Parts: sequence; C-alpha cells; structure tokens
Amino acid sequence: MYKTSKIVISPRVRKSPYFDSTMKYGATAFTVYNHMYLPIVIEGPEKDYENLLKGVQLWDVGVERQVEIKGPDASRLAQYITPRDIKKCEVGQAMYSPLLDFDGGFINDPVMLKIAEEHYWFSLSDSDALLWVQGIAAGQNYNVHVFEPDVSPLQIQGPKSTELMSKVFGKWVEDLEFYRFKKTDHYGIPMVIARMGYSRERCYEIFLEDGSKGNQLWELLWEAGEEFTISQGTPNQIFRLEAGILSFGSDMHRENNPYEVGLSWMIDLEQEDDFIGKQALKKISETGVKRKIMGAEISGEKMEFFNEENLQVSIDGNRVGAMMSAVYSPRLEKNICYIILEKEFAEVGKSVCIHSPDGDLEAKLVELPWIKKRG
Amino acid sequence: MYKTSKIVISPRVRKSPYFDSTMKYGATAFTVYNHMYLPIVIEGPEKDYENLLKGVQLWDVGVERQVEIKGPDASRLAQYITPRDIKKCEVGQAMYSPLLDFDGGFINDPVMLKIAEEHYWFSLSDSDALLWVQGIAAGQNYNVHVFEPDVSPLQIQGPKSTELMSKVFGKWVEDLEFYRFKKTDHYGIPMVIARMGYSRERCYEIFLEDGSKGNQLWELLWEAGEEFTISQGTPNQIFRLEAGILSFGSDMHRENNPYEVGLSWMIDLEQEDDFIGKQALKKISETGVKRKIMGAEISGEKMEFFNEENLQVSIDGNRVGAMMSAVYSPRLEKNICYIILEKEFAEVGKSVCIHSPDGDLEAKLVELPWIKKRG
Repeated sequence: MYKTSKIVISPRVRKSPYFDSTMKYGATAFTVYNHMYLPIVIEGPEKDYENLLKGVQLWDVGVERQVEIKGPDASRLAQYITPRDIKKCEVGQAMYSPLLDFDGGFINDPVMLKIAEEHYWFSLSDSDALLWVQGIAAGQNYNVHVFEPDVSPLQIQGPKSTELMSKVFGKWVEDLEFYRFKKTDHYGIPMVIARMGYSRERCYEIFLEDGSKGNQLWELLWEAGEEFTISQGTPNQIFRLEAGILSFGSDMHRENNPYEVGLSWMIDLEQEDDFIGKQALKKISETGVKRKIMGAEISGEKMEFFNEENLQVSIDGNRVGAMMSAVYSPRLEKNICYIILEKEFAEVGKSVCIHSPDGDLEAKLVELPWIKKRG
Repeated sequence: MYKTSKIVISPRVRKSPYFDSTMKYGATAFTVYNHMYLPIVIEGPEKDYENLLKGVQLWDVGVERQVEIKGPDASRLAQYITPRDIKKCEVGQAMYSPLLDFDGGFINDPVMLKIAEEHYWFSLSDSDALLWVQGIAAGQNYNVHVFEPDVSPLQIQGPKSTELMSKVFGKWVEDLEFYRFKKTDHYGIPMVIARMGYSRERCYEIFLEDGSKGNQLWELLWEAGEEFTISQGTPNQIFRLEAGILSFGSDMHRENNPYEVGLSWMIDLEQEDDFIGKQALKKISETGVKRKIMGAEISGEKMEFFNEENLQVSIDGNRVGAMMSAVYSPRLEKNICYIILEKEFAEVGKSVCIHSPDGDLEAKLVELPWIKKRG
C-alpha cells in the first residue's frame, strides 16, 4: 500500500508532547516534519480513514510549530510577510495566510491566529519559516519579538468531534464559528481551542500551551471519547485529497505561486500596504500563469500504492507537468491525484499519461475539489 | 541497540541523487534531514563502524544542502552572517563557519567553500538556513543572488580513501591539502572534490553538481573500490563522538553559543567588519559562559542502546545539565557521551548522574576529544 523503511529514534529529531500517547495508542509509521516525529499511519491508511468516518479521532500535529510575533510593530510585520489582507482579521479569528518570497513563491502556508492586538501566531507547515521571519524582521528593524513558543497543536476530527469537544470543554464549543478560537484553561492545562483543522469536515484544533501536559490532555480526551468510538488518526491523505487540500512540500513548492495552485483568493493586491512578493504577484496577475493545478482521475483498478515521489506527466509523448500526491478514495471509488501542468493543457476532460515506476497510467483531468462539504 | 519505528517514503520528503544506490547497497534505516531521507544504518551501527575501519566507505550526505551566495556583495554578506574571519579564506579553501543569530545562538554550523571571488557555498547541517540568509540579504539590500544550487555531497571515508580517490580521479588528489578543494569533471560528471568530511580521519567530500548523475558516480566509485574492501556507511555516531565532533540538533541547539560548546576558536571579535551576533558574543567573552560541554564516560557494561532524546543530568540530586549523544566505542572500550552542564560543575573527574528511562547511570566528566588523530 505504501513503501516503508525503518526510522531511527534519535535526539536530533524532537518528540511531540503527545509522542508517548501516540505510541501507546498504536502509531506504526512516522515521517519527520519541522524536525519532529509526525505519526502518519496507525492501522493502515484505509483503516484509519474508515475509523475517522466512524466517530472521532485525535491527530498529533504537534509538528505544526508556531512563529509568534509580538510587540509594537507586530501587525505591520505580519502584514508585510503575507499577501492576505490581515487587517480584516479580528482578535480571536484565524486566517489561512501563506508566506511568500519576493518572486511570489511559497516559503510556507501557515494559518495565522490573531491572539491579541499586536500579537500573532503563524501555525507552520514544513519549513523553518521562523528563520525567514526573523531574518526579515532584523533587516527592516521592526520593533517586535519573533520566536517559537511552547505551543503544540492536537486535532480532533470526525463526525463526533463536536460532541466530544462539548462534553469535555463545555457547551460553548458548539457556538464556536469557523476559523474562530478562544483561550481557555482546563484543569490547569492552558490552551487555545479553534474550530478548524486539516480537512473540510467539522473539526477542532487544540493549541496546547504547556508541552509537559500533552499526555494528560490526550488521556482526558481519550477517556471522554470512548462513547464516541474514539481512535487515533493522523493527517489523512485520502480525506485531504478528496477535499482538494494541498500539502506544502508534496503538492506545492517554493517554485510555485498562489495563482498556479488555486490560492489566488487569498491575495489582496488592492490593499495599500506593501508586502513581500507584491510586485511579482501583480505582474503574474497581469500576464497570467504558466502552470496550473488540476485534479485527475487515474483509470483502472484500485491503486495499491502511494507514490514515493512526484511523477512525470505527458501528453502525446511531450512532458507537460508532474503528478503530486495520489490515493484511492473509497468514498468516490476512484484513484485521484493532483497534477500541475502547463496552462494550455489544463482542460477538464483532457487525457494525460502518468509515468510511474510500475508502468504508464492513464488519467483524465477534472476540477478540484472532489468533495466540497464544509463542517 | 537503537529504537526504531517505520518511516513512510512519500513525495513530501526528497530523495537524494544517491537514494537508489543506497537502497541497492543495503541501507536499512533512515532519518530525515533538510527535508530529505538520510540513510543512517546499513548492517548496524557497530558493524558499519568495523567496516569503515577495514577499508573505504561511501556515505550519502546529499542532505547537506548548499546556500550559494553570488554577486557583487557576496563577500560582504558571507562575512556578515558568520563570526569566522572569512577574509582569510582563499579561493579553493573551505572553513567551518557557523551561522549565529543576534544573541550568538546557532542557526546552523556549515562548512563554507570559497568557490571564486564573490562566490560562496555554505554546506548546511539540519535547518533551512537558506531562509535566514535570504531574509537577512533582503532586509539589508545586498546585491547578491542567494539560492540552493543542484549540489549533493558524497563522502569517501576510511583508511583506504586516498587510494580510492587517487585511483579514480588521478594522482593530484593525493596532494590536496586539508580543507582545500578543486573543481573537476569526470567523464562528464561535474563536481568539486574536497579533502574534508564528518570525521577526523583522512576523508574526502565530493560535491556532485548534477543531481541526475548520482547513481553513475556511486557505481564508478563502487567498482573501483572493490579492491579496497568498499562498503556503504553513514555519518557514524561512534566515529564522531570519539573525535569530539558535534551534531547540530543533537548536541548543540539554537540556545547554545560557540563559547559553551568549545567552538570559540572560530570567533574573531577583533576583525573590523560587523557580523550578526558580534555584540552578544563580545559580552559573553567578557562575562563568561553559564554552561559548558564536556565529555563523560558512563560506568558499567557496554551500553546496548542509543538514547532517544537528551537526558537530564544531576549532581547530589540537583539538576545541573543534560546528556546529548551517547555511544559505546569499541576502540576505547568505553561508553562515551557529551554533557552540557552549568560551568561551575564542569570539572574533569567529577561524578554525575544521568537519568535514563531504564534507570540512573553513573558517569565521570573528561576532556574532549577522546581521539585526536587528524588524517
């Protein structure tokens, strides 16, 4: 189903505050993300997906490290590092706010949380964007403190997630709106609870603010969740692709800009403030992109593999792009994948050939996403 | 001997240009380093060490990504990001040149290669220091191009390394001085050959300049190396600790400065040029450090484990520091480790207690390194 080797547990890679719990409750395979172990398989990719749809799951996403920006110039710096107009963000609100370089290419694609006035967290995907923000802040003499706080997210996913959250933390969780959060303290465990996560289903993200209490938090959720068929899960590849969610490093890279990968909606070129990449993005918005991301459905039997790397894609023998992530979706009963290809070929219904190490695959381009449901 | 789990091979983590060769020649366990798979076990840590001493080994260290700085202000920027006086470096010479933050803490500890006038590579350990250097360069308006080139190192280690290198690339390799390098082209494979590597024995590092030719380079070295008992190895934990070599992320971290970990020799506070951290380092050099790294020898039988994380260290029940990496050295017939502890306790001969999950260990502090030999 997926290719593995062994990984050695050594001090160079950090354990998440939930690491012992993930081992106790059956994590069987890992990757490394932001210099930390990230569990990615429990019983198996499909079984984990089935379990998710059954009740509620805990996902250790402690690897999502935060860049905290605090101080008199925090808003000014936060705005400078992202094309999203974050001046529209209220305290207690979160916004998907990618960090781009001066060419408009992705440095990282965090969700930003406005904790207080002049106080922000950027919840990172896999790159040391802390170094980028610190480098930028130093060079431009912003009066801010930029650092990595002791904050480690845990996601609560699945159809029963609201029931579990409400049972544990109180009725107020049910009123939490999409991409809104609240600071709280639960039996001495400090945390921020947000209604968001790495899927388009109803889900929550707990930002634990004391790394020594990870296993305590896990156990109390686990115990309360037994009546809701709780299980351990991990950021789910099937779930994610069905919903058209991208993974930085797998599906988009430094050489991609938001226009190419369907994220132009978060760029605000009209705002007065300057931000990194503004000039480059303005130019791209005028001249158009060279490449575009599409969904694709791969013909034939259920795929029994996850691809190990991006694969070349061609039309009539000419290379036109590359396949990023791919999975078999049991709900859709289809092999689905993302392809980034030259814009002139990015047409729904077009046939392409994917060059896999096990032979060529035939696929047809479709619109993204496959499943639009939003919790 | 060491704790493992499974690792999933997925497109989010890159393969090195030598990946197929490392699998073909028996890599059995990996870690992830700079977003790439790094093989770290072949037959087993001790067997790999024995093989190394027998002849010659190839180590895939393609994970050492390069930050390339090129352009009119390259020397000025290169000097600004490191406390080492790199104005003393000639073209064709390399220097260990750590990157520090404004508090003097480690961002990364690369070896710098002066490729040409106004043209440098910084060969990284495990952090996205590219983002740091790009952020700094942007803020301060240096006229340079800072990027990651297509360069992937391979190390040739072991007592027969000179014989192999000389056989393959020519007699001139024998005259290469320590930390000197030369650009060359071998049957159409472009590369830089340097006399250096991650040990204090005679060794070489080939900086392959075309990622598509990794397996071709590997195979030609392998074939030529059969008469010298060639084997595959990996950055060797035993070898490294015996020589007192540190690993960024295991033994030193962002919160450490060079004075604490025995690297003050590479700080030049007297130079006229400013560099990041200069003020902070000046202050530390005047007031002294709070912590210091020491070697320690752990009593009792041969240790059968590698530690999974840094372990707490105490004296008379008071926490005084932490143990970093540890191994059993067959050559020394000792369990050896690094400890960073409060300076007042950092005395040769002092007994300390290491709190391991399997029970307390007794250890005695010693000077670093255990083996001083330099090839």
